[in-house]
Amino acid sequence: MKSLTPTERSRVRRLPKRARYDLDTIYAILDAGFICHVGYVNDRQPYVTPTAYWREGDYVYWHGSHASRMLNHVPARPVCLTVTHLDALVVARSGFHHSINYRSVMIFGRPLRVDDEEAKHRALEHFVERIYPGRWSGLRPVTRKELKATTVLSMPIEEASAKIRTGGPVDDEPDYRLPIWAGVIPVRQVHDTPRADARLAAGIARPANLDTFSRIGIDPA
Amino acid sequence: MKSLTPTERSRVRRLPKRARYDLDTIYAILDAGFICHVGYVNDRQPYVTPTAYWREGDYVYWHGSHASRMLNHVPARPVCLTVTHLDALVVARSGFHHSINYRSVMIFGRPLRVDDEEAKHRALEHFVERIYPGRWSGLRPVTRKELKATTVLSMPIEEASAKIRTGGPVDDEPDYRLPIWAGVIPVRQVHDTPRADARLAAGIARPANLDTFSRIGIDPA
Repeated sequence: MKSLTPTERSRVRRLPKRARYDLDTIYAILDAGFICHVGYVNDRQPYVTPTAYWREGDYVYWHGSHASRMLNHVPARPVCLTVTHLDALVVARSGFHHSINYRSVMIFGRPLRVDDEEAKHRALEHFVERIYPGRWSGLRPVTRKELKATTVLSMPIEEASAKIRTGGPVDDEPDYRLPIWAGVIPVRQVHDTPRADARLAAGIARPANLDTFSRIGIDPA
Repeated sequence: MKSLTPTERSRVRRLPKRARYDLDTIYAILDAGFICHVGYVNDRQPYVTPTAYWREGDYVYWHGSHASRMLNHVPARPVCLTVTHLDALVVARSGFHHSINYRSVMIFGRPLRVDDEEAKHRALEHFVERIYPGRWSGLRPVTRKELKATTVLSMPIEEASAKIRTGGPVDDEPDYRLPIWAGVIPVRQVHDTPRADARLAAGIARPANLDTFSRIGIDPA
């Protein structure tokens, strides 16, 4: 699959052997997450706002209220969008080599507002389907007023890099003989049993695909 | 407990009812996480770098190689450090009201390098103890060379805010009568069974407290 050419900004300097620029890897990391961190600059001050995001083709999207400070500020301005998954705590034989296994993606670009009503409608559908696949068709339809109250931003995945650490501790050669336990403590995000809303209308069964979805959850494996 | 006074930067504008400024809440959110996102500006370009962090008293710390671009750039410069926990996917009766439960903290400040050797040593100890409590005393001691190769930054938790969404979907009043399932899908980070390093010295048993630690894990509850 296609690989991106690292730029001055997106090239991983520190530990370049952990870097990946192929879209397969970048997309897989993006598709495993729900929350990204959007960095932007306002009056020389950096802000890092966590927000839900989703990917569709070679674009990332995020959205929110048309009153959001971040959403109003960033269109056409430089943004760095980062997604990170913690995969393990790495326990070494010395303090120095303790580490963390992770997968992360950084995307640089200038987001644009999705203004076309149909495109916005589709974007909202993708957001809902990302949270809970198969959900959209059974919902009360979106109104024009709701569409108006929602700002959707999109940014192309053109200037991006992934960085990944996997595996166990890398200790100093003499330290391997020490009588010290070392290894990894895997960390995983899981879905728990869904809880029905207290105001659920009478006689509504839990959708059958909800359990499957929850069991699959967001296990990175 | 003490509460911080929101500033122009740290005041939560959007959905202020989700905002918290008390240190109890801010510290609890910080102490539940391992990875933060550090936002900084270089030549008007924002960067958002994920990194391990820890809290000690009213300071946050992060560290890395003395060759790290981010660690070399940010001392005395404005930084926004954000920590976010995803707690649930919120499934509503309309697309518009789908949401996410989360706890997040944003800290604004200018980090300083920890140069004092003893303070740096202590900081590394806190990092290791954060990953795996009780670990430090059994390790091969840190060398001066390792200390030199490590940059540690600290930033006071003075200008900060927390933002929290909890609970179920908030639907439009007429929508509660619709025959649509709604509720929350809780999301949790868990520790899995620790895996010993392939090169473990012969006869090293898994430390007893490792299982307790892993069972407690990083359950937000």
